[in-house]
Amino acid sequence: MKESLKFYKDFPKEGILFIDIIPFLQDKKVYKEIIDHLGEAVTAPNIVAPEARGFLFTAPLLITKPEVKNIIPIRKSGKLPFHKGDLKDIAIEKEYGFDHLFYRLSDIAAGEVQGDEIHLSIIDDVLATGGTALGIAESMMAQTITKDGKEYKVVIDEFIFLVEIDDLSGCERLKKIAPVKSLIHL
Amino acid sequence: MKESLKFYKDFPKEGILFIDIIPFLQDKKVYKEIIDHLGEAVTAPNIVAPEARGFLFTAPLLITKPEVKNIIPIRKSGKLPFHKGDLKDIAIEKEYGFDHLFYRLSDIAAGEVQGDEIHLSIIDDVLATGGTALGIAESMMAQTITKDGKEYKVVIDEFIFLVEIDDLSGCERLKKIAPVKSLIHL
Repeated sequence: MKESLKFYKDFPKEGILFIDIIPFLQDKKVYKEIIDHLGEAVTAPNIVAPEARGFLFTAPLLITKPEVKNIIPIRKSGKLPFHKGDLKDIAIEKEYGFDHLFYRLSDIAAGEVQGDEIHLSIIDDVLATGGTALGIAESMMAQTITKDGKEYKVVIDEFIFLVEIDDLSGCERLKKIAPVKSLIHL
Repeated sequence: MKESLKFYKDFPKEGILFIDIIPFLQDKKVYKEIIDHLGEAVTAPNIVAPEARGFLFTAPLLITKPEVKNIIPIRKSGKLPFHKGDLKDIAIEKEYGFDHLFYRLSDIAAGEVQGDEIHLSIIDDVLATGGTALGIAESMMAQTITKDGKEYKVVIDEFIFLVEIDDLSGCERLKKIAPVKSLIHL
């Protein structure tokens, strides 16, 4: 799988080495291998997927893994329509600047519950400094989800990444919250 | 499938009725039905998918449909790393303003060829005025793709949408280029 990756120097800014995962979509054998590995790593029935590349590798799990029941999309500004009180804003510190991401409580509530908890796996393509995943996890863990009149606590089961850049120590920040599982280490 | 859709008035702007397809991710039966229908509709080995919602419904075809060999992502500004000459800019007239989208010639070249042609299916979630799909198709048809030293012509086999809004007549604009196949009509 690792051999499929392509690297671009100084994108989107000087000093950043961009890891291009699009080649994973150009080799069916590799793509299937990735989806199989992700399926083995996931333990929660609800998957949190940041747009846009997170969508490319999580949606197929709804087909391949019976236990996966729901994909909760994390989106950029202006992309998720919402009713009052449903939209949550996450301020994310990124490797190259700040970003705002959004999700809806109703998309979490649509998922499968276990006892009085809703378990989530956060899946994204690349783990660099971990800012995005950490921001999502901290925001979601602070929510109480109401479903059919009952309240549920949010539990993060794990973080899963296609690629982890070991030098950037994102794992150190995330593993205080939940285990970090990465398919490829760079 | 149609019953799963949710509608939001005046989003992202006044006068727009936003069609939310995220509920398709919250019912596995419906999601599988959609992926099956898309798989039946696709005839080209290479799929063109605009971010981000286009990714949610095309990536699984790499798993479910043996004939699908490649997903060509259409992305927003600053998202696709590129080598000089590889990135193409599309100016899109949208229902609510202008937008710029980008793709890479090398992502088309990575696909499967037929004779001296590369056949593409353009798949997106919602067909409104058709501006996005039309812009993508016209831009791609104007390219000559070089692969292994040989030149290929780009052919659009079809446009496929989860939802088509009949009143907005997007189909009229697109069908001059290729057949339009929509799973749901509104």
